[in-house]
Amino acid sequence: MKRNDATPKITNDILLARLARVEGQVRGVSRMLKEGKYCIDVIDQITAARRALERVALLVIQRHLNSCVKNAMAAGRGEDLTVELVGSIDKFLR
Amino acid sequence: MKRNDATPKITNDILLARLARVEGQVRGVSRMLKEGKYCIDVIDQITAARRALERVALLVIQRHLNSCVKNAMAAGRGEDLTVELVGSIDKFLR
Amino acid sequence: MKRNDATPKITNDILLARLARVEGQVRGVSRMLKEGKYCIDVIDQITAARRALERVALLVIQRHLNSCVKNAMAAGRGEDLTVELVGSIDKFLR
Amino acid sequence: MKRNDATPKITNDILLARLARVEGQVRGVSRMLKEGKYCIDVIDQITAARRALERVALLVIQRHLNSCVKNAMAAGRGEDLTVELVGSIDKFLR
Repeated sequence: MKRNDATPKITNDILLARLARVEGQVRGVSRMLKEGKYCIDVIDQITAARRALERVALLVIQRHLNSCVKNAMAAGRGEDLTVELVGSIDKFLR
Repeated sequence: MKRNDATPKITNDILLARLARVEGQVRGVSRMLKEGKYCIDVIDQITAARRALERVALLVIQRHLNSCVKNAMAAGRGEDLTVELVGSIDKFLR
Repeated sequence: MKRNDATPKITNDILLARLARVEGQVRGVSRMLKEGKYCIDVIDQITAARRALERVALLVIQRHLNSCVKNAMAAGRGEDLTVELVGSIDKFLR
Repeated sequence: MKRNDATPKITNDILLARLARVEGQVRGVSRMLKEGKYCIDVIDQITAARRALERVALLVIQRHLNSCVKNAMAAGRGEDLTVELVGSIDKFLR
């Protein structure tokens, strides 16, 4: 009860709001291209969208750890899920 | 005249079509969350969107090299633009 | 006892052997520079070293999940460690 | 004479000194593992080594742009080299 009150629960609403913002950023890149904006500014805007997308992935990883992985560990089959998760992080890195 | 016919010109249309697809992928992530899809599948879909976004950035970098940077080099001020570009790639990496 | 026999234990020896190889790859980059090798080949060798380093990080993450995080979860304070781990993955991504 | 005095020339000595430091950082990771240091601290040290390696790659890219690519552009075959370079950056990103 007392602990982890500091860690806000990662709800779907939080993730969906972030994804809506990413969509807006991607649309922003399209707009910049249509307006003939300078390449470097376009790249920097793509960087911002990509970074926002990464943040969503990190939140999903955190939620996964604190739900599925945690339950699997309690049930003695945690290792299968950590192998799976690390494989997914690996794909994400590349 | 003769060379580089093999390298298709990176038009705005090509980039905008790719960005429209990225938008669709991001919307796909939202849909998966709403449908309660498994975390790992969500992460893998985010990875796909992120990768598609990276590809757009790489195409913009290539176009920038073959237009702005090339012109700047011909005008003797190429180094300013390569420093700027590498700085932008650096932000992209982080 | 029975499960996870398929997942080899990530020992320090495994990690140290991989790190020794990374060191060799980094020395290889230095050698290539001294020998005046073509820039693109140098970059590709750096990419290989970086990728090998990433693999070590992923193995350490996996080991961490299956030891410290698992124990913390069993003790009811898993969330602190997952927040810490995701923060570390975040730094790694940037 | 006047321009670019601000941009220090990227000599082999600069790159070799940085690579020697990366080697030291990788050895540092090995040492931390042997000393049983906390996983998160090990990961953060790997992140530092990886980042230092990235910086070297960026400097090599910059040098490549201001030498080989510049010369190729002047000779009218710049596009071949930019395609090659962007391909190498792509491998680096993944």
